[in-house]
Amino acid sequence: MPPRALAAYFPILDWGRRYDRHALSNDLIAALIVTIMLIPQSLAYALLAGLPPEMGLYASIAPILLYAIFGSSRVLAVGPVAVVSLMTAAAVGNIAEQGTAGYITASLTLAFLSGAILLVMGLFRLGFIANFLSHPVIAGFITASGVLIAASQLASLLGIKAEGHNLPELGASLWQNLPMINPITVAIGLLGLTFLIWVRKGMKPALRRLGLGPRMADVLTKAGPVLAVVVSTAVVWALGLADKGVAIVGNVPQSLPPLTLPGFDLALIKDLLLPALLISVIGFVESVSVAQTLAAKKRQRILPDQELIGLGAANLASSLTGGFPVTGGFARSVVNFDAGAETPAAGAFTALGLAIAAVALTPLIFFLPKATLAATIIVAVLSLVDFSILRKTWAYSKADFAAVAATISLTLIAGVEVGVSAGVILSLALFLFKTSRPHVAEVGLLQGTQHFRNILRYPVLTDPSLLTLRVDESLYFANSRYLEDYIHARVTGDTALKNVILLCSAVNEIDMSALESLETINIRLKEMGIQFHLSEVKGPVMDRLQTTHFLTDLTGKVFLSQYEAMQVLAPVLMATAVPLARG
Amino acid sequence: MPPRALAAYFPILDWGRRYDRHALSNDLIAALIVTIMLIPQSLAYALLAGLPPEMGLYASIAPILLYAIFGSSRVLAVGPVAVVSLMTAAAVGNIAEQGTAGYITASLTLAFLSGAILLVMGLFRLGFIANFLSHPVIAGFITASGVLIAASQLASLLGIKAEGHNLPELGASLWQNLPMINPITVAIGLLGLTFLIWVRKGMKPALRRLGLGPRMADVLTKAGPVLAVVVSTAVVWALGLADKGVAIVGNVPQSLPPLTLPGFDLALIKDLLLPALLISVIGFVESVSVAQTLAAKKRQRILPDQELIGLGAANLASSLTGGFPVTGGFARSVVNFDAGAETPAAGAFTALGLAIAAVALTPLIFFLPKATLAATIIVAVLSLVDFSILRKTWAYSKADFAAVAATISLTLIAGVEVGVSAGVILSLALFLFKTSRPHVAEVGLLQGTQHFRNILRYPVLTDPSLLTLRVDESLYFANSRYLEDYIHARVTGDTALKNVILLCSAVNEIDMSALESLETINIRLKEMGIQFHLSEVKGPVMDRLQTTHFLTDLTGKVFLSQYEAMQVLAPVLMATAVPLARG
Repeated sequence: MPPRALAAYFPILDWGRRYDRHALSNDLIAALIVTIMLIPQSLAYALLAGLPPEMGLYASIAPILLYAIFGSSRVLAVGPVAVVSLMTAAAVGNIAEQGTAGYITASLTLAFLSGAILLVMGLFRLGFIANFLSHPVIAGFITASGVLIAASQLASLLGIKAEGHNLPELGASLWQNLPMINPITVAIGLLGLTFLIWVRKGMKPALRRLGLGPRMADVLTKAGPVLAVVVSTAVVWALGLADKGVAIVGNVPQSLPPLTLPGFDLALIKDLLLPALLISVIGFVESVSVAQTLAAKKRQRILPDQELIGLGAANLASSLTGGFPVTGGFARSVVNFDAGAETPAAGAFTALGLAIAAVALTPLIFFLPKATLAATIIVAVLSLVDFSILRKTWAYSKADFAAVAATISLTLIAGVEVGVSAGVILSLALFLFKTSRPHVAEVGLLQGTQHFRNILRYPVLTDPSLLTLRVDESLYFANSRYLEDYIHARVTGDTALKNVILLCSAVNEIDMSALESLETINIRLKEMGIQFHLSEVKGPVMDRLQTTHFLTDLTGKVFLSQYEAMQVLAPVLMATAVPLARG
Repeated sequence: MPPRALAAYFPILDWGRRYDRHALSNDLIAALIVTIMLIPQSLAYALLAGLPPEMGLYASIAPILLYAIFGSSRVLAVGPVAVVSLMTAAAVGNIAEQGTAGYITASLTLAFLSGAILLVMGLFRLGFIANFLSHPVIAGFITASGVLIAASQLASLLGIKAEGHNLPELGASLWQNLPMINPITVAIGLLGLTFLIWVRKGMKPALRRLGLGPRMADVLTKAGPVLAVVVSTAVVWALGLADKGVAIVGNVPQSLPPLTLPGFDLALIKDLLLPALLISVIGFVESVSVAQTLAAKKRQRILPDQELIGLGAANLASSLTGGFPVTGGFARSVVNFDAGAETPAAGAFTALGLAIAAVALTPLIFFLPKATLAATIIVAVLSLVDFSILRKTWAYSKADFAAVAATISLTLIAGVEVGVSAGVILSLALFLFKTSRPHVAEVGLLQGTQHFRNILRYPVLTDPSLLTLRVDESLYFANSRYLEDYIHARVTGDTALKNVILLCSAVNEIDMSALESLETINIRLKEMGIQFHLSEVKGPVMDRLQTTHFLTDLTGKVFLSQYEAMQVLAPVLMATAVPLARG
């Protein structure tokens, strides 16, 4: 295979050849900052997914390396993210109890299936499937997921348990366990939350005011969550709070990512296939949009099909090394970008840093209170919650609004899988419904031009013997009968009518059903003594009509332009028209 | 309520007021001919549905009366039809054993659910749902159903049993039971089949040659199947063939349609809901197309939503009077029309005739061999089988071909429900896929006109600093990213480019996702120093864009026509253009 074709599948061959010392030092600094940020986040997302905390670290090591080899983005940071962790908890929670070996096996299997699906989509160039998720549906889904995540973490913050994968379940569970609230945990949780919010909003300006340089202030701000981890762990250890009911992370094995095997039980695979598909598509969409946003800033290009391969490899790696489903994360990728990462090597260095953490630092987090991790998650996801999409879509498009509203409300009430599926199905159904009742405009000549517009919107020239209809949609089975009925209703009783022209400038396709409808229209009009014409039929549509009898049966003609049609069919009128603006 | 509004729901109020003796005598003659034709057909379709023969008569009495009151067609004859009977057998066969009370209850329930679904669709004006069944999918489905029906009746013709709802099952069952073949039954069946085919093709000309008038020849031809019934019954009785293993109809109760109650068990309803929906939609589509074809010949109009109400009432009536799902049949309606029926009163007289048959004639068909009925069905359905739709769609549209091929093959291999569902889903998926990758043409000015066409198809005028793209599709979530990528790929590296115009004559909608994509395109082009313009934006689309920031952020303008855009953006070029053909 020539190196070029190989480089298409291994972007590393491209940037790797030009790697130099300058890039190395930038990548090393970025890796250090991202590693510091990822340690608490990885632990927290594993807990969110219902898994042991170390799996969060494992899920960030091998996947990053694999993405570095196959991914097309220079700065995307792959690992556990909030929404995918929530979806993992929902999918696996239906199959096994948290804390059991079955739960862990199912999570590994879910990652394996997601990886396989992404890889297949990438190899067969099926990335376009993700386009069927509309922007508003994604925005609504992420907002609702953020709310669900925050609600699920509220329990950890209060030191109680809450189970469930939707708001009613979580609310009932929270309410039921409320008496078991632990005041010390609440104190730790709220202090942690307040501190982390301050880290986001006020820390950097405060450090600058203390005289620190912008770069240093930035690094320290990124280390804020680690500070919260260190301080809260130290306090719990020093005051012996674990004995007073504060839930702690406890024993975390000191180990490199282990080799693990996903389950290949057919029943398990069948149960996880749909969730795996949803996780793949949602993860892919989220990841690509982050990657594209960051690539655009440096005029780089993201190849969606190659992204599928990169994310697929990352998930397969995750399933084989003790992880769970991963994707490109927004926060970590932005941090990586801002920290100056130049190549995927930064990701490799981050993986190295996390591997060191997994081997060396895990004993230190024995006393880390889970409430601190909950606070980390809540602060992270609150930035995802943005209900303004409801207002925006309401103002712009009621169909989009309906899809968003259904997505948000069903995600909250019935969980992530129902929510996002309903959003996709509803947005497609509304699109199909709209195309099944196309806008049909009666048009006339805009004086002084060769341009034809809606008679209801513009002062145009028309002839009573001539009806020109512009149908604003491709003609296909779902709307062909509508057109039949529309024309039938419009011409019935109009005795002056001699010619009907169908202006086809917006007709991008005529399928077999529509062809039969046009034949029916032609015959019906013929019986009424009216000629039927077409104008401005597009090249590909005309090519296809020419393979049929329709053009020979047509009582009228096919005109290249509507203007030509008017000149031929209404010459007297056209002679009186205002001359064209320029000749 | 004023009589007008009432007449909208009761078409009988319209034609009933003008009923006269002339119409009466025409309707009576038509009713007589249809009754003679319907007796064997009704018995046969009941057997096809796996039900006792008398239920076929019952299903033709009350439903006809109800349709006469509510239906909008003057000549549609409602009752059991081949495809719907096959679908009934498939749906009910999954739930109960043939010959049990449960089987009958399930059939009544299926008719009730179909009636309820049709009625609800009619009252809420949801008839458009049927438009999502494309013509080729329907044609393919009916052809495949015809083959399945003929295969299932082949067994009766040979005097053996065959069970199954698809070709592999039927074939295996036939093969297994082949040793039990009954030679006398085969003889009766084949003689019946040969005679009935001759009735269809050769009887009328033969009678005319014998000197009969055309009207008389016609009536006798219609009575052909009754003749087969009478002769074969007499032979079986006279020769005592029932004792020699010829399956006969046997004891049929002498009764008017009984009052029956469908089952209201929730589990039963849940199992039958999807089949009932499919039966309703297929039955409705078949019925409306027959009604419209016949109405067009007399310049009458069919109101699809009223048809839903008429068919819904007919099915509810069927479920309450010992019947099973019914719809408007092709053969019987054509016979009714040809026999001169003028109003739905002909249907009422037919119902009366069948009621008399049910009360008085049933003892006479005790010895009627089932093979004769099988022959009746086979001859009737062979006219439905028409594989030419495969050839036609292959020549015209590969997408339509794929949908038909899937419908036919899956109906044959996996049964009616899987087949028609797959056809609908595939045709919608292919439509969505096509709209997700729209045709985008680069256009230029056709010299001597104000018309713009594809630069690859016409010798047109273009300017290197100006790129005009006509995107031949509405812009929505499934194709908005495609457009982003298309424009990005096209403009990258084209250093001469100063202006990009999106010619929107075929853009019927811009949804929220597409609006965001246009914003992205605008920003990206701006960063490359290229202005972004729109032209020929349709009224409704423009109205909506004006509610957003997009038009203020747009680096370029929105031009009313593409010609105007060219004049403004490429004035030097336009000065050299060939003058317009006329000014």
